[in-house]
Amino acid sequence: MTPLEYLAANRDRSLQELIEFARIPSVSTDPQHLDDMTRAAEWVAAKLRRAGPIDVRSMPTGGHPVVYGEWLGAPKAPTLLIYGHYDVQPPDPLEQWRSAPFTPELRDGRVYGRGVSDNKGPMLIPLEVARAFFATRGALPLNVKFIFEGEEEIGSRNLGPLIAANKRLLRADSVLSADGAMWRRDEPSITIGSRGVVALEFRLTGASRNLHSGRYGGSIANALHAMAELVASLHSRDGRVAVEGFYDDVAAPSDDERRAIRDLSFDEARFLAELGAPAAFGEVGYSTLERQWLRPTLEVNGMWGGYEGAGSQTVTPNEARAKLSCRLVPDQDPDRIRAFVVRHLETHLPAGVSLAVYGERHAALPYRIPPDHPGLATAERVLEQVYRKKAVRVRMGSTLPVCELFKRHLGIDTVFFSFSTADEDFHSPNEFFRLSRLHEGLAAWALYWDTYSHRSEE
Amino acid sequence: MTPLEYLAANRDRSLQELIEFARIPSVSTDPQHLDDMTRAAEWVAAKLRRAGPIDVRSMPTGGHPVVYGEWLGAPKAPTLLIYGHYDVQPPDPLEQWRSAPFTPELRDGRVYGRGVSDNKGPMLIPLEVARAFFATRGALPLNVKFIFEGEEEIGSRNLGPLIAANKRLLRADSVLSADGAMWRRDEPSITIGSRGVVALEFRLTGASRNLHSGRYGGSIANALHAMAELVASLHSRDGRVAVEGFYDDVAAPSDDERRAIRDLSFDEARFLAELGAPAAFGEVGYSTLERQWLRPTLEVNGMWGGYEGAGSQTVTPNEARAKLSCRLVPDQDPDRIRAFVVRHLETHLPAGVSLAVYGERHAALPYRIPPDHPGLATAERVLEQVYRKKAVRVRMGSTLPVCELFKRHLGIDTVFFSFSTADEDFHSPNEFFRLSRLHEGLAAWALYWDTYSHRSEE
Repeated sequence: MTPLEYLAANRDRSLQELIEFARIPSVSTDPQHLDDMTRAAEWVAAKLRRAGPIDVRSMPTGGHPVVYGEWLGAPKAPTLLIYGHYDVQPPDPLEQWRSAPFTPELRDGRVYGRGVSDNKGPMLIPLEVARAFFATRGALPLNVKFIFEGEEEIGSRNLGPLIAANKRLLRADSVLSADGAMWRRDEPSITIGSRGVVALEFRLTGASRNLHSGRYGGSIANALHAMAELVASLHSRDGRVAVEGFYDDVAAPSDDERRAIRDLSFDEARFLAELGAPAAFGEVGYSTLERQWLRPTLEVNGMWGGYEGAGSQTVTPNEARAKLSCRLVPDQDPDRIRAFVVRHLETHLPAGVSLAVYGERHAALPYRIPPDHPGLATAERVLEQVYRKKAVRVRMGSTLPVCELFKRHLGIDTVFFSFSTADEDFHSPNEFFRLSRLHEGLAAWALYWDTYSHRSEE
Repeated sequence: MTPLEYLAANRDRSLQELIEFARIPSVSTDPQHLDDMTRAAEWVAAKLRRAGPIDVRSMPTGGHPVVYGEWLGAPKAPTLLIYGHYDVQPPDPLEQWRSAPFTPELRDGRVYGRGVSDNKGPMLIPLEVARAFFATRGALPLNVKFIFEGEEEIGSRNLGPLIAANKRLLRADSVLSADGAMWRRDEPSITIGSRGVVALEFRLTGASRNLHSGRYGGSIANALHAMAELVASLHSRDGRVAVEGFYDDVAAPSDDERRAIRDLSFDEARFLAELGAPAAFGEVGYSTLERQWLRPTLEVNGMWGGYEGAGSQTVTPNEARAKLSCRLVPDQDPDRIRAFVVRHLETHLPAGVSLAVYGERHAALPYRIPPDHPGLATAERVLEQVYRKKAVRVRMGSTLPVCELFKRHLGIDTVFFSFSTADEDFHSPNEFFRLSRLHEGLAAWALYWDTYSHRSEE
């Protein structure tokens, strides 16, 4: 039996493993799920140990632990550092889920549940592939170091120090990432760049408490009016971010970059229909893909204040809050952008309220892989084998902080080799993962390891 | 024993009655409190029956019932229609209460709890006064019809039809309202006018679900950005409401009106300190009291969308909601103002989102009592007896829809004779009622009834 045959014969079991994994509500951002985070880390460690003679350890961090495993039994072959994350986004808003977020459900060839696409399904693939090689050949074709973190959804804030402190342990030829997502279902793709991110929260406060809108309305600042004015000031009418300094370090996209994007087939009407959006909207002068891949953004992720309950409560709210995040492109620096945004909030603060900026310093740099990296060629060859179709090179609007961390501390690049798809509603209700992707991913990872193992002899 | 002596001897019992009443969470706007509304109505009916030989009935409405009671044993004396309400505002935000909102607590000569000031404490006063007259004299000095509703906090929406259908039953010489509040602690006052109100809710929707702010951010409308822009458009920088037509029917205040307000002693610094507000804020060209009493307002009472939980969720929110209400002055019409606001929302709708206006048609007209109404003279005489100080005539920024309803259907005016105080944080956390006000109110109501009973012979 070959590893590929083994994987095909074990598809049902692989799926059951994913369902079991996705039942653990490992929401890293929410302190209420601390025990679930521990359970998820233990589940991953146990799964690694079951896969074969892998040396597994849990590595504590300032936050959620990293699960590490290694098998170094192929001294002549290269070494891959395999990356994935076991934490998931919060499931909110709960009422929009068709099935419970942590009770995975199979419908129409998909498994639905929080985290199945981002990143539990994809990160399970290398574990199953390792198991298949050990079961059929008794060994892996190359050396593998697994690193699974529990803080990707909160900016991988403790991963940098851990990598910096374990450079020798983590030494490898390149990173192969189970996280990253292909850009669409019907076209294999390789992601060659991702945006950075910086996030903050702020609060506006007027009076010391909510006030009766009849008694006081019209004579005291309403924190929601101030919030609306302040948030509206963050963008200009043409969709540009109005924060002074925001675009200072943004290089204009090159003609080559813009042409490469224009050459991709992209059906905007279909894209909008899939999102249920009436129209595209964004920075003037750029196409939708350029806006997603090449341009920085500032997005308010949450905003609230006053009475949200049933019926009406006639208050003049004294407090309003907002969470915002910026996606960054080369060469924007998260700390600098954060400072620009804070300065904008301060200088545009409406009368009658005070400002407090708080929240964690969730930040990550943007990343690009050199176009001639050998891992890209391997990935392209494998994808063509699996899909009988040439893969396209794309970018990613979202953020994988780890790439820049691996590059900075270990000097190695990251090949995105994820089998989730951008339309799978990760970060939204009804997240799903296609079973066909699970099967394709299992085959592709096995082929990648086999192919890449010969690289040094090529 | 005189009624006043009886009331003084029964102060502790009166307070215990209030505490018992305030334990019932009669939140009219919240369907979860439907049983509590019934319990509160039954409590009021039982209390009326215990007060003396009052003919009590519960009158069903399209919503919460009206509790009605009458004693008509003084054929030569005038008839007062006594108004109050047994429903209360929601207690939100709960975490800001020092003691539980529905577990009344005594601190520093005050009782704290939702509804104690608005309106359970004040509406208990006429019940206790009736009991005192029956206990000491065996009769009341004049005829009394009690009408206690359960929908004041939601715009008294079923009271109009009930009054219209029961004109004969409710016939009286004037209304004496237990609701209304004096404007400050240290100066007895009589309220001669109140603002109207109209409220609505609306929702902005972009895509069909929250989207990953990395993947899609910058290329699809963010409903919170649209909401901020739309809400910001409702006011101009100078604090005026920017809705076209909003001020069309507002008569400019007369010189007399403005002078009367200027002549009142009003310490703005102290007012702001009490509210914990850094500055006054409102329509340019008007003083704080003018803004509260003479000018209409538009206030957003609640606004929300996206992720509000702990930590961060990097979504581009597809939906944002807001609740707003306008306070109206003569001669603004609630339906007309509502239509103007809706038209503004429609015509200022940002690109990429759709608008849905919903919510109950909570509305009430503004009201003014004729300055020569005999009930005002009686109130002034009584307040001077109780406080040894002349009462001032003031207005109220908030809304008592009932006054206009009584005027329209029964042709009678309403004298506000409430003993709550504007600073008692009704509609806010830590609502309280001063025990001294309870005692003063009991004496004042007994004196008012005695004084007003001779009116026809004057």
